Amino acid sequence: MRLTRFSDIGLRVLIYLARTGDRQSIVTAAEIAAQFSIPVNHLVKVVGHLARAGWILATRGRNGGLRLAIDPMTLRTGTILLELEGTEELADCEGQQCQLRKHCALRGALQVGMRAFYDAMNAYTLADLCAGETGEQIVRMHRSFTRQ
Amino acid sequence: MRLTRFSDIGLRVLIYLARTGDRQSIVTAAEIAAQFSIPVNHLVKVVGHLARAGWILATRGRNGGLRLAIDPMTLRTGTILLELEGTEELADCEGQQCQLRKHCALRGALQVGMRAFYDAMNAYTLADLCAGETGEQIVRMHRSFTRQ
Repeated sequence: MRLTRFSDIGLRVLIYLARTGDRQSIVTAAEIAAQFSIPVNHLVKVVGHLARAGWILATRGRNGGLRLAIDPMTLRTGTILLELEGTEELADCEGQQCQLRKHCALRGALQVGMRAFYDAMNAYTLADLCAGETGEQIVRMHRSFTRQ
Repeated sequence: MRLTRFSDIGLRVLIYLARTGDRQSIVTAAEIAAQFSIPVNHLVKVVGHLARAGWILATRGRNGGLRLAIDPMTLRTGTILLELEGTEELADCEGQQCQLRKHCALRGALQVGMRAFYDAMNAYTLADLCAGETGEQIVRMHRSFTRQ
């Protein structure tokens, strides 16, 4: 079980911006792509999704860049993950046309498990994810990038 | 987030055998592969893993086949999944050499979330997964296969 690459990137973008994307400090998609060794075209797709969700603002032009559009204390990690993953289903019952799919006790059990996972993740806000040492490391990364 | 194909197959093998693999009824790897449209070579790898875990017995020969080696009421679904998945980590922090990995609040939060998931899954035994309609469907599938 792994997060999709899409979710993984989306979480890093949000955490990075929650710590750096204020009005005094411009953060570009190219910066985030470089920091996490993500191909820029992947990053741009994720950024588009986060913008459509209303969580980040992307502005164009010479001083354009990315910043958070919401208060990171109000955005919960389970909510972020569910939006980025797009489904709570852990098994591809329908795609595989499994003969058990119409009355599968496992499918129901997995849904209960995922609900417990998302509930536990919702105990963390985006602000929690970039607190303490994580946030300090992001500030160091950002400073090092802007000095290049 | 999806189960690995390995776990997905492993769970189906266990559920199928929990309902059919008694001494009166021979179930072969070929039968399970056919029932769930799984390539036999994939299935054989998973069966080997389940046998090494001590959960199933595979016997060779003319009347050889697969059967459960444990009481399905004693085997918990979280235990099965953790064995088959091989890791609780949802993100590949090390493989990607993420710059945040040494002090990442997200990594800790994901571990808490996965612990909640596995705890919830452990509320279900293997016996629960093949109870009721699921079990009835498996019995129908097995009868239909053996009549071919």
